[in-house]
Amino acid sequence: MSEQLTLAQLAEKLGAELRLVNGASGNQIPTGLNTLQDAGENQVSFLASANYRRFLAETRACAVLVTADQAEACPVSALVVANPYLAFAQATAIYDDAPRYAPGIDATASVHPTAEVHESAAIGPGTVIEKDVKVAAGVVIGPGCVVGAGSEIGARSRLFPGVVVYHGCYIGTDCIVHANTVIGADGFGFAPSEGRWNKIHQLGGVEISDQVEIGACSCIDRGALGNTVIGRGVKIDNMVQIAHNVQIGDYTAMAACSAVAGSTVIGKQCTIAGGVGIVGHLTIADRTHVTARTLVTKSIENAGSYSSGTPFSESRAWRRNAVRYGQLDQMARRLRELETTLAMLSTETSTESQASGSE
Amino acid sequence: MSEQLTLAQLAEKLGAELRLVNGASGNQIPTGLNTLQDAGENQVSFLASANYRRFLAETRACAVLVTADQAEACPVSALVVANPYLAFAQATAIYDDAPRYAPGIDATASVHPTAEVHESAAIGPGTVIEKDVKVAAGVVIGPGCVVGAGSEIGARSRLFPGVVVYHGCYIGTDCIVHANTVIGADGFGFAPSEGRWNKIHQLGGVEISDQVEIGACSCIDRGALGNTVIGRGVKIDNMVQIAHNVQIGDYTAMAACSAVAGSTVIGKQCTIAGGVGIVGHLTIADRTHVTARTLVTKSIENAGSYSSGTPFSESRAWRRNAVRYGQLDQMARRLRELETTLAMLSTETSTESQASGSE
Amino acid sequence: MSEQLTLAQLAEKLGAELRLVNGASGNQIPTGLNTLQDAGENQVSFLASANYRRFLAETRACAVLVTADQAEACPVSALVVANPYLAFAQATAIYDDAPRYAPGIDATASVHPTAEVHESAAIGPGTVIEKDVKVAAGVVIGPGCVVGAGSEIGARSRLFPGVVVYHGCYIGTDCIVHANTVIGADGFGFAPSEGRWNKIHQLGGVEISDQVEIGACSCIDRGALGNTVIGRGVKIDNMVQIAHNVQIGDYTAMAACSAVAGSTVIGKQCTIAGGVGIVGHLTIADRTHVTARTLVTKSIENAGSYSSGTPFSESRAWRRNAVRYGQLDQMARRLRELETTLAMLSTETSTESQASGSE
Repeated sequence: MSEQLTLAQLAEKLGAELRLVNGASGNQIPTGLNTLQDAGENQVSFLASANYRRFLAETRACAVLVTADQAEACPVSALVVANPYLAFAQATAIYDDAPRYAPGIDATASVHPTAEVHESAAIGPGTVIEKDVKVAAGVVIGPGCVVGAGSEIGARSRLFPGVVVYHGCYIGTDCIVHANTVIGADGFGFAPSEGRWNKIHQLGGVEISDQVEIGACSCIDRGALGNTVIGRGVKIDNMVQIAHNVQIGDYTAMAACSAVAGSTVIGKQCTIAGGVGIVGHLTIADRTHVTARTLVTKSIENAGSYSSGTPFSESRAWRRNAVRYGQLDQMARRLRELETTLAMLSTETSTESQASGSE
Repeated sequence: MSEQLTLAQLAEKLGAELRLVNGASGNQIPTGLNTLQDAGENQVSFLASANYRRFLAETRACAVLVTADQAEACPVSALVVANPYLAFAQATAIYDDAPRYAPGIDATASVHPTAEVHESAAIGPGTVIEKDVKVAAGVVIGPGCVVGAGSEIGARSRLFPGVVVYHGCYIGTDCIVHANTVIGADGFGFAPSEGRWNKIHQLGGVEISDQVEIGACSCIDRGALGNTVIGRGVKIDNMVQIAHNVQIGDYTAMAACSAVAGSTVIGKQCTIAGGVGIVGHLTIADRTHVTARTLVTKSIENAGSYSSGTPFSESRAWRRNAVRYGQLDQMARRLRELETTLAMLSTETSTESQASGSE
Repeated sequence: MSEQLTLAQLAEKLGAELRLVNGASGNQIPTGLNTLQDAGENQVSFLASANYRRFLAETRACAVLVTADQAEACPVSALVVANPYLAFAQATAIYDDAPRYAPGIDATASVHPTAEVHESAAIGPGTVIEKDVKVAAGVVIGPGCVVGAGSEIGARSRLFPGVVVYHGCYIGTDCIVHANTVIGADGFGFAPSEGRWNKIHQLGGVEISDQVEIGACSCIDRGALGNTVIGRGVKIDNMVQIAHNVQIGDYTAMAACSAVAGSTVIGKQCTIAGGVGIVGHLTIADRTHVTARTLVTKSIENAGSYSSGTPFSESRAWRRNAVRYGQLDQMARRLRELETTLAMLSTETSTESQASGSE
């Protein structure tokens, strides 16, 4: 449940300097947060980007998170901070009214007698905790989750409903895993023989560091031999596929529908946009940015921004260009021939020209 | 369970004119539906497209849904309607033998005492209904679903097994949500600071209008501030990702594996093909069609068909052209140079020519 | 639990010839498997590709699976086999310590009285088995799975947690379905009428043959009329979407995030790489290979390798080329004009040249 803070208390919590406009009171109790355009008179807003500055003058918010520079232009009370977007993020935690769950194991949960569940943890209805699992203090799991034999869930982590953690996986502290995500399913490994596929049992696990958030319906496969490893503070969106033995460096973020094939190593503080694919056995440098829907087919040695794909357009124009794409190599060779012919012709003409000029 | 209707009764239900062939009886009871090619003598078929007309002459179906124009050519009894494909759709409802669920709350479900579950609703085994949830008349939920605190499910809606609805979400009437889909998980929002990601708690919800169908393993994230909104009659396929604060207009359809990034507004009656990606903060005009696998990177102001991508081909040919793609800008510049050189040369030659001609 | 085999017993199980190095004993009990680089002194390794041969000389493994050719170069005991990768796959089964489940129906499972569950099957906590379901010998289902009315699960098949099988689906013997995958949800079929979508109830089912493995969070839709069919020994990775009435031939493999639209027929022994899309109503020849992220838009009549897409590069270079892509058709026409002009000019110059040469 969101706290009932006065503006003055909110300012203190956020480390903000409260500059009240005429007649405003630090005792006002804001009801929540909203954008500059949509905020009502009891809501706090924020100015995080110059793009939104034009909305500042007409906001109805009771107070706005701004930098000192912007405070002058603020028509309502200002909450002056160094980084308004960061302060806004901190404020969202205060006003989040998501339900909290009381410690304890629901009567309909199945907890194996050898599992160690901390007394401050909350295990929701229908959740299954298998043999030798360890659930640390303050953890909230379920409803309807499964944590496989020998896996561990670190302190204060949250598994939303329907999350499945296979056996032998480790999730660190302060992690969030959203609904129906699967951690530790078998990597896709088969030895071909006589036209058939022979399963390579996946003997490794998954190791997720602290402060990791993973969206809904994502998959992080267990390693074939050794673990798949997700670094500290990594943020992964919905429907992201991480194959066996991938390693993702600390504080890297991956947007929805991105996918990484087996054994690829992604550096630290990378930002991988939505729909990106990265093929297997590559190495991606720290602080690499990959734009939406790019397919990365080679290792990236230097930080920078990388892209692939073609621009979209009306289908009719697109079709004309797409047909030409299939002729590109031929076009390039024709271009080369033209250059050669033209070079010869220029020489010839020049010679002729000289010849006729010398007449 | 499918109903036991005679041909005559079926015709009446579908508003069709029954034209019996010699010897056929309106009292025959068809067992179901099938294509013109595969229908047996007790099955009803349909001719919905001129492409399939060639199969009409040899069908063994006991009756065929056709337009008046096509009825002449029908060798078996005809069910004459204005729109055979629509009549076929209506007939599939009649012959659908999917299990129905009796009203009531399964003994293994967990329903919070403050939740209001209509007596005609069916709550399946293991389903969890949290605090203050409202479940309307005729709803079927479960098994194994979770409906979070304060959420509402409108009359006659169906949540298939494993669906997770987070707190504070609203689903309208006559909706269908397929298995393991997640509604209301957190949008992907973080404020960067000192190389780390600070979570922006997602304070909005999800608002799904009436007659919406959502496929399996799809995700519709809750809004950051304000709601993510899905319009009336929208149809969404499997594995579709809808990010926070997206709005989708009435009667738009989105095929499998499509994805829409944050705050994008999609118009009404759009058709988004499979695998399409739409980046964030765009506006897409009503009645826009986007072809398979297109990445939409700018707002679309006019209805029409839009595409991106390159044609597929044998890998060897593809590789040659793909290499040239990386030289495209260089090729364009060389082309320009050639044009310039050739223009100069033409002038020169023409001068020479005139010169030598004037000799 | 992994078995405690001596090297000699392991050799026997794998049909390998054990060539012990000086002082080594066939009675040593290896603890597991690892790569040549990482194996410890109690682990068995394998040399499956010439690429890894350089690691052989320095391996610390107690024994290595090698071919007879490679055995000479092996510094430790050799397990000589015809196909080391296949033998490695077989060995992974031996050392897999994934939990096994005792036969029986968990007290929290809901099994309909008309369902036939073999006494050797294991039904996990919270799993729901509906009316008329048949579960064969040695099957393991759950926790938290749902098997819909009338569906069948063949002998020794394994449904991991959260798998949903709708009504009227058939899964063969020795299949594996990973967590949260959905089998038999409705295909995406609607008849448009007056700007709205009218649901076509999906009356077919899903038919999955023997020895099929399906990854996590994948979807295989039921047929509209007739079944969606997955052939024998097919291997499907995570987040793969198979639409209604698709048919996939025996021993085809499909990597993660690939998708096949409705009614497409894929041949036998095809290999479909990650992220591939195949549009509807196509036929793909046996033994076709499709490279990562390709969009297949036409039927493929001949086995071979097929690709689409453009290479990735630094965003700056990419942008220059991407802009040119939108000019491709224009470039092609300009190229043609240049060729024409140049051809005319060459003739002219050549004539001039002859003319002046003849002077």
